Amino acid sequence: MATSSLTNVQLAVYFFFQLGVILLVCRAVGVVAKRLGQPQVVAEMIAGVLLGPSLFGLLAPEWQQWVFPRNPDNPNQLSRDIQGYLFPASQLGLALYMFVVGMEFRVDIIRENFRSSVAVSVAGMLAPFLLGAGLAWYLYNNTQLFPENTQRWQAMIFLGASLCITAFPMLARIIHYKGLTGTLMGTVAIGAGAIDDATAWCLLAVVLASIEGKFENALLSIGGGIGFVLFVLLVVRPLLQIIQDRLIETAENGKRILSETGFVVGLALMAFGAWFTDRIDLHAVFGAFVVGSAIPRGVMHRDMIARIQPLTVGLLLPLFFTFSGLNTRIGLLNSAYLWAFCGLVLVASILGKGFACWGAARASGLPNREALGIGALMNARGLMELIIINIGLQRGVISDELFAILVIMAVVTTLMASPIFDLLRLNPPASNR
Amino acid sequence: MATSSLTNVQLAVYFFFQLGVILLVCRAVGVVAKRLGQPQVVAEMIAGVLLGPSLFGLLAPEWQQWVFPRNPDNPNQLSRDIQGYLFPASQLGLALYMFVVGMEFRVDIIRENFRSSVAVSVAGMLAPFLLGAGLAWYLYNNTQLFPENTQRWQAMIFLGASLCITAFPMLARIIHYKGLTGTLMGTVAIGAGAIDDATAWCLLAVVLASIEGKFENALLSIGGGIGFVLFVLLVVRPLLQIIQDRLIETAENGKRILSETGFVVGLALMAFGAWFTDRIDLHAVFGAFVVGSAIPRGVMHRDMIARIQPLTVGLLLPLFFTFSGLNTRIGLLNSAYLWAFCGLVLVASILGKGFACWGAARASGLPNREALGIGALMNARGLMELIIINIGLQRGVISDELFAILVIMAVVTTLMASPIFDLLRLNPPASNR
Repeated sequence: MATSSLTNVQLAVYFFFQLGVILLVCRAVGVVAKRLGQPQVVAEMIAGVLLGPSLFGLLAPEWQQWVFPRNPDNPNQLSRDIQGYLFPASQLGLALYMFVVGMEFRVDIIRENFRSSVAVSVAGMLAPFLLGAGLAWYLYNNTQLFPENTQRWQAMIFLGASLCITAFPMLARIIHYKGLTGTLMGTVAIGAGAIDDATAWCLLAVVLASIEGKFENALLSIGGGIGFVLFVLLVVRPLLQIIQDRLIETAENGKRILSETGFVVGLALMAFGAWFTDRIDLHAVFGAFVVGSAIPRGVMHRDMIARIQPLTVGLLLPLFFTFSGLNTRIGLLNSAYLWAFCGLVLVASILGKGFACWGAARASGLPNREALGIGALMNARGLMELIIINIGLQRGVISDELFAILVIMAVVTTLMASPIFDLLRLNPPASNR
Repeated sequence: MATSSLTNVQLAVYFFFQLGVILLVCRAVGVVAKRLGQPQVVAEMIAGVLLGPSLFGLLAPEWQQWVFPRNPDNPNQLSRDIQGYLFPASQLGLALYMFVVGMEFRVDIIRENFRSSVAVSVAGMLAPFLLGAGLAWYLYNNTQLFPENTQRWQAMIFLGASLCITAFPMLARIIHYKGLTGTLMGTVAIGAGAIDDATAWCLLAVVLASIEGKFENALLSIGGGIGFVLFVLLVVRPLLQIIQDRLIETAENGKRILSETGFVVGLALMAFGAWFTDRIDLHAVFGAFVVGSAIPRGVMHRDMIARIQPLTVGLLLPLFFTFSGLNTRIGLLNSAYLWAFCGLVLVASILGKGFACWGAARASGLPNREALGIGALMNARGLMELIIINIGLQRGVISDELFAILVIMAVVTTLMASPIFDLLRLNPPASNR
């Protein structure tokens, strides 16, 4: 089927079929992943890569083209029509998920372990940033991994920021999955992860602004981001506290529940937050997370999570992970040369993040086992890495090859966390898994 | 902002802002509607029309263009980029909703009142079809309401089918909202509505097939549709019955719940069902509904509904209703002449459906009050009318003007139901509303 000018109805036909395929493959990989002690979210990242040109497209290119038509101008990417609807739908799933993560975020725990959190987060930023920037300097001079339009210092900041990234939402899920919620290790890792990610997004904003040659854009991102956080925490949060009783009603069984109006108000706030941070180039996930953290704890918070989470995690979020995988072509790494750079990036990212955070946690006085666990958690790149490199690819900062290398880095560092936990015997009893 | 070649990121920015606006306006109209005894779903239809060129675009054309950019080639419709993602997202919401309606559908009740259901459904099909076809004959000769490419008999079948339509899912919601579930009236209306809608879709399939000059397409639609229903009921349903125990697990609190795998299997079946019926031109709603009716009753059915319904009704479904309204330009009816035709269509649709069904219900032996209630319910066109006329507009069977007339007809006939109920004192006690 030609995809150059599909009608809406034809697009919807594609959409439903792709949705069914994505859901089933994610679940099938998830069943295998679970046996190996890996969380579902890791399975979805891998399912995306498998469904993309890296495996499905290699084994059965015509079928793959039939299910996921590719862009005739750039066969590494999906066709523009398909991207046009898969991207917003996957962004919606992502924003809803980060909204839930924001609602589950507990500022109080971070306050308690502030010193360790800061030590780990500074180490987890400086070390990978310096390693990433140095590596970019080298790669920029010696390879074609950055497009011609990208300048050297942009390449350095971008790769530095990419290595800084922590799998912030994935970290939350792994901590939950491994039964570490509220533990010293889980808490420090979440706190440090949040700080690191906010910084990485600001670095990304600088790169994006510089590409468009508009440094006022970087100021807009950073200033707008700070203003947004202050506005949400100082205006939206207190307002919600005041009106929250009006958003709660008594159900037929006498239970206090969030009213339909309250639910929609929360969703609309999430949408506007996602819009604003997208608009100032800070990405929708950031706005959705901040708005989520401002939702009053209690009935509203409990019912928002209960109503959003199942369909978001079951249906929409897999679209995001798969979308990233579908744009990844591991076959592009078609020389020992490129695989060597892939190994280099991998070593730099593990040294810079995992080892540095382990060291910092030790230095701040934590026991060795916990410090190793924190290193493994911080090292996992997962979701956020995919977001940042997708933006880099969309805006032309990195080549398709470097994109593939960074996807592999994200998958490998994320996969590493669980076996390390098993080695450290940090897992809860089997019955809990 | 120009919208001719937006990047994915820019599209996502639009999407989140539109989402926030749509949610808030739907809710605001919903609060007013509730005071007037109208269900939320009616409010969403009207909110769409208000947000479109009919009101928002009339009062503040530049703002409207900013929030919902329009197609430069056809200012009656949204820009192609915006449609490209709003349409699949709204279709997803609709399919999920019809999936839930299918799960709530009770074949047993229809069996019990088979005679009345059939009488009402036959009357509710023949009368409006003949009136609609006659009206189309007249309009085709005397107006420009049908595009030149549409042939007379196509116009007749299309308008006939449009008048036949019942607000099948809306009918279910009104019956639930008014506390009529399980009553004689509610049951007969749902049964007759289901039969009528299946027939109307087959008529539509004939029209669509004839437009493309391929009558084998009509056979494919009708034959494929029958085959699909048989396959789902005779193969998928028994299979699900057999494996359902494997899809259920015991939660930490000892409660039996649907496993995540079971949830995803159900969603994937819905997606494939929607895909298949879309593919054979029978529309996704039909497949989603049939698959929903095949989900085993019990834990799976209960948890599927609980996990899908809140986010679907709160977030995704409003997109569908608004999408229809956004493509509607009531201002196109800019002459007394066109408004007269609008009145004509309205009278024909009310006579053909509401009065005919009332008469048939009386003739089959039901009491007068119940018969009037059934007439009012069957008369409401709501959702399904919007779907069928959207398809007609997309495929070029009807003009933008006739589309606007039919939207008004759908809104008015749907709005009528509640006041008629109040007059008949068919409402449950106020506490239940």
